[in-house]
Amino acid sequence: MGALSELFAPGRIAVVGATAREGSIGRAITQNLVDDYDGEVVPVNPNYDEVLGLSCVDSVGDSDADLAVVVVPPHIAVDAVRDAGENGVENVVVITAGFGETGSEGAARERELREVAEEHDINLVGPNSLGVMSTPNGMNATFGPDNALEGSLSFMSQSGAFITAVLDWANDEGVGFKDVVSLGNKAVLDETDFVAEWGDDPDTDVVIGYLEGIEEGRKFIDTAREVTQDTPILLVKSGKTDAGAQAASSHTGTIAGSDRAYEAGLDQAGVLRASSPQELFDAAQMLANQPLPDEKRIAVITNAGGPGVMATDAVGESNLEMASFADETLDAFGEKLPDEGNIYNPVDVVGDADIDRFRDALDIALADENVGCALVLSAPTAVLDYADLAEATVELREKHEKPVAACFMGGERVDAAEGVLREAGIPNYFDPARAVESLDALGEYRDIQRREYDDPVEFDVDREHVRSILEDAADRGDTRIGVEAMSLLDAYGIPTPDGDIVDSPEDAVTAAQDVDGDVVMKIVSPDILHKSDIGGVKVGVSNEEVFDAYEDLITRARNYQPDATILGVQVQEMVNLDDGVETIVGMNRDPQFGPLLMFGLGGIFVEILEDTTFRVAPVSENEAREMTDEIQTAPLLRGARGRDPVDRDAIVETIQRLSQLVSDFPAILELDINPLVALPKEGDETGVQAVDVRLTIDPDQL
Amino acid sequence: MGALSELFAPGRIAVVGATAREGSIGRAITQNLVDDYDGEVVPVNPNYDEVLGLSCVDSVGDSDADLAVVVVPPHIAVDAVRDAGENGVENVVVITAGFGETGSEGAARERELREVAEEHDINLVGPNSLGVMSTPNGMNATFGPDNALEGSLSFMSQSGAFITAVLDWANDEGVGFKDVVSLGNKAVLDETDFVAEWGDDPDTDVVIGYLEGIEEGRKFIDTAREVTQDTPILLVKSGKTDAGAQAASSHTGTIAGSDRAYEAGLDQAGVLRASSPQELFDAAQMLANQPLPDEKRIAVITNAGGPGVMATDAVGESNLEMASFADETLDAFGEKLPDEGNIYNPVDVVGDADIDRFRDALDIALADENVGCALVLSAPTAVLDYADLAEATVELREKHEKPVAACFMGGERVDAAEGVLREAGIPNYFDPARAVESLDALGEYRDIQRREYDDPVEFDVDREHVRSILEDAADRGDTRIGVEAMSLLDAYGIPTPDGDIVDSPEDAVTAAQDVDGDVVMKIVSPDILHKSDIGGVKVGVSNEEVFDAYEDLITRARNYQPDATILGVQVQEMVNLDDGVETIVGMNRDPQFGPLLMFGLGGIFVEILEDTTFRVAPVSENEAREMTDEIQTAPLLRGARGRDPVDRDAIVETIQRLSQLVSDFPAILELDINPLVALPKEGDETGVQAVDVRLTIDPDQL
Repeated sequence: MGALSELFAPGRIAVVGATAREGSIGRAITQNLVDDYDGEVVPVNPNYDEVLGLSCVDSVGDSDADLAVVVVPPHIAVDAVRDAGENGVENVVVITAGFGETGSEGAARERELREVAEEHDINLVGPNSLGVMSTPNGMNATFGPDNALEGSLSFMSQSGAFITAVLDWANDEGVGFKDVVSLGNKAVLDETDFVAEWGDDPDTDVVIGYLEGIEEGRKFIDTAREVTQDTPILLVKSGKTDAGAQAASSHTGTIAGSDRAYEAGLDQAGVLRASSPQELFDAAQMLANQPLPDEKRIAVITNAGGPGVMATDAVGESNLEMASFADETLDAFGEKLPDEGNIYNPVDVVGDADIDRFRDALDIALADENVGCALVLSAPTAVLDYADLAEATVELREKHEKPVAACFMGGERVDAAEGVLREAGIPNYFDPARAVESLDALGEYRDIQRREYDDPVEFDVDREHVRSILEDAADRGDTRIGVEAMSLLDAYGIPTPDGDIVDSPEDAVTAAQDVDGDVVMKIVSPDILHKSDIGGVKVGVSNEEVFDAYEDLITRARNYQPDATILGVQVQEMVNLDDGVETIVGMNRDPQFGPLLMFGLGGIFVEILEDTTFRVAPVSENEAREMTDEIQTAPLLRGARGRDPVDRDAIVETIQRLSQLVSDFPAILELDINPLVALPKEGDETGVQAVDVRLTIDPDQL
Repeated sequence: MGALSELFAPGRIAVVGATAREGSIGRAITQNLVDDYDGEVVPVNPNYDEVLGLSCVDSVGDSDADLAVVVVPPHIAVDAVRDAGENGVENVVVITAGFGETGSEGAARERELREVAEEHDINLVGPNSLGVMSTPNGMNATFGPDNALEGSLSFMSQSGAFITAVLDWANDEGVGFKDVVSLGNKAVLDETDFVAEWGDDPDTDVVIGYLEGIEEGRKFIDTAREVTQDTPILLVKSGKTDAGAQAASSHTGTIAGSDRAYEAGLDQAGVLRASSPQELFDAAQMLANQPLPDEKRIAVITNAGGPGVMATDAVGESNLEMASFADETLDAFGEKLPDEGNIYNPVDVVGDADIDRFRDALDIALADENVGCALVLSAPTAVLDYADLAEATVELREKHEKPVAACFMGGERVDAAEGVLREAGIPNYFDPARAVESLDALGEYRDIQRREYDDPVEFDVDREHVRSILEDAADRGDTRIGVEAMSLLDAYGIPTPDGDIVDSPEDAVTAAQDVDGDVVMKIVSPDILHKSDIGGVKVGVSNEEVFDAYEDLITRARNYQPDATILGVQVQEMVNLDDGVETIVGMNRDPQFGPLLMFGLGGIFVEILEDTTFRVAPVSENEAREMTDEIQTAPLLRGARGRDPVDRDAIVETIQRLSQLVSDFPAILELDINPLVALPKEGDETGVQAVDVRLTIDPDQL
């Protein structure tokens, strides 16, 4: 595919299916282009000589266009795209619906469309798209009623209706855009392509989007990570709740991955996730117009105590914190503010403050190097003109180059001031919490910019051994594997207790002698899932008892299920749990993001409290370490309640090694190490032991 | 005090300190009253014959007013109130500042003011108040710039500035009020008085407020509980976060109780808590204008798939759930909607829906008895007029008598429709989540109305025994008491293990013989806090070992701290923890709400996961039961992971008995039963045992 920049800046656009018929999509698009677009518009329709005053050509192949917008019915749309491709049109937007969203016939048509686009190297948007817009050249190649105002947000949406709704609102609010794209069915171009394009676009300050799914999770993460070094990405990803995911799936046929995968993946990608359109635009406007704060500490300057308290609460619930002022700052406030005021944060300039006092206070606060950003919070009073306050706010924001949010409370009284603020890119809110949240988004993005992404470590492992274990299982027809696969962990350097799987009582005795102390013995059979229930596990077996125990285990298994495949008996070192913590490390595959790693503490912590954390593999050391830090029960790993801390480095390494294993073998669909016992570190010995493992494989992927 | 209704509906108002001086508060109030008030206004000022065209009297005593508004300086304000009281003025609003908020002199003045008010039985608002308003008679007895529109919300605020801000906004939005009161320092009348008044007021549909503190928590709970049977109460209570609480305290000198106490107390009171002004007014407008839903199940009717998914997500995060439609409903949708539509919830009428299709779908959905409320969600399209949709929405809301929220997305296009909706009390939002939350508030209030408040059970207890234990401790000078107070639990019927506290080895042997099996022995001394650390606890002591163990414990204690008071040795039955769960039941006193009960699981669950729940005592059986239900780890009590459930009834009874104990003895400042071991119920025996207890007392309150 060529670069996408021409898609948004074509010199010549063909409208395939252009018509003057009232109420038709073909007319709406042609009219939108005629109205505002700077370039040439070529209607394509063999039935007309001209459309809306423009002369028509018979086929897109004759149009010599840089971009073709296709609105003809589905059964001829694919041919139109082929015609475009064969004649050198590199960019196509397929507005036409009736593809993958409508059943198997449509899905076949969509596959054909994709093949044609790939064959001719076409940048194809849609099908089932509202169209695309780009404001620098006035291009509104959509059938929506409104064109966008000029601005620096670039916006993609999986819902065309949402674009229409947003534009109507944005035009009213004065919010502008650079490019807008309705993704439609994403047969060819998807969110990752646009993120990449806008990341390179000097006219896009912020990428925003509404998505119901992400097509290729890992590619998205890798692309977004680079883009977010310079350009923030803000998304509403719907389907957060089960009901929402179901609705999304019936809406666009998106096979939604789990929201846990999205939560992890979007975070790893450096994407800010908004929970509503309001939050999306609040944050986007701040990011597009304001400098980033060096500090996450905020000063609140107010003439109203009550709202000051509300703002302080909102700060407490955000990632920001209330700044503590330097002594000089407090002295300066002391000089300028009356005795009834408050020189500590939130700074109360008191209800009788005029513009000079308010300006002085804001100036003093912003000058303090402990202050990263400020909220100007005001109730209406007789002695203060909001327009003056707006001008002072803009002036001091410029002077100090620190971000400022405004919460001038009121109705009509605020109108003039809002114009001044908006001009300077400072949104005004009635609600102190919204203003604080919008500043919070700046701080969050600053943290993303400061992130250091380390590459995943490549450990020296024995891939072939793992392959042979998986192939053996596949040959046996087993898709579920248990302790018989312990050596698969050894092959990837994940510590397991000493021991072996044996198939005779004599070997069991030898194996037990190789191990310190008593042993645990377990029947090994892919057909017996709940070993304990049938007496298939013996704990604390002494060397003398091993022989008999072996025979007893085999007998029990045979009695329980005569036709069970019995692979032997596992003889394993006893792991002392007294000083340890049982953890779980696992993986399952998400349809969008691929291998999703899970970490948590075992037992009730996972089962009842769901105290778990997720990352898309492969993970770096930093990411693995974050996992061990961010669970609620992390203090238990750090040695709460007078106990020694466990060997967290060993857990972190285990997560990384598991990450490598599941990345190397797509055939592993699920894997759980449960428990991974974590003990305090002693000398050079690793502190973790993988005591049990289960996995599910897909033999077709071997 | 007389009823407050005259405060809001006086026939004659005296303004004490009225003046025509430009920019003065006295002029602002007089002018506000002259402008709109239906009754008579009497300026009081010995320096003038007339003010703003009204003839002046020299003193409030001469005014014959029903309400006096006092704006004279603080040093003469108290005299003015006395004069009013002596001359039969029953209602006074003190605007004047310079009282409790300004230091010790002001605090003394405020005490005097309170005494005068009490002596003359005056309903006194303030001091340091913006004033009061009541729209039926046009009374704006504030110095704020705006009068309120008429409506059915009654609004109290601890911040005058917030009132000013809200009114400016509300007048613009068309939101009206019945009464408005700026509470000021709450020297006499506080939030509870206004809640009671508005609960009796047929013209108030919803009580809303901004509070930084609640003066008398228990009285507030009891009053609000009654009021909320008919009238919803919605509050922003600031100081949710630590920083916010500190800011609130420096703002009005409110000694904020812990937010945990507010969280529990407001919930017990049946008050809905809003987290921001926006949420407050969103919910208030719905509650004032819409019927309550019988069901918490919502139908979403939309012409736009993407926003439909967003709304579904918002429902998933609320207390509502997506309705499942009856078969007839699905059939009816099938007839009216095109194939591309969705007849399941969210119902998609598709982008080309005209008003008839949209109306039919809404009508069908609201007719379904599984549907309690509906969201009409629309993106702008060429074939749908928002004003038509607004009219259909209003009409069908009336027809089906079910609450409906609107989310007509857009900007200017929405204006006309919003007028129609507003007229019918249906707020419109750009954000689907806000619309869902506003319906959620209706469902929450319906649940509050359906609550059954049972009275606390009065158990038969031995109060005198507890009194003697507490007095003994006080006589010894101990403010902290430990296991020596176990019999205090027995006296209130809280089960404790068998055993005794003894002061000789011989008695220890006798005590041990009275107990089944081995015993635990602990040194009993108020001076030795960490008994285990000095070997002051012995576990699993057999009858033969008891004599020596006693002597050893005493020796260790003497060696450790020769001057420690040693009250003896506790000899206690061993409690088998294997099948049990360790819980904690505790109490501490909140400055506003009094005794705050806590329940949670012991150990890391309380210490690290903070999985605890709180209630203001005294609690009823229902409230105690809720506590055992709502902790995250409640499944462990119910018998998770294959274990038998523990005796929850016994825990519930223990919480109630503790509630009675701490309510009977205000001298108990803190009390912890830790652990309260909960075991599965066996036969008639109770399943709980209070193994250890600690309390802190205030001897002055005995």
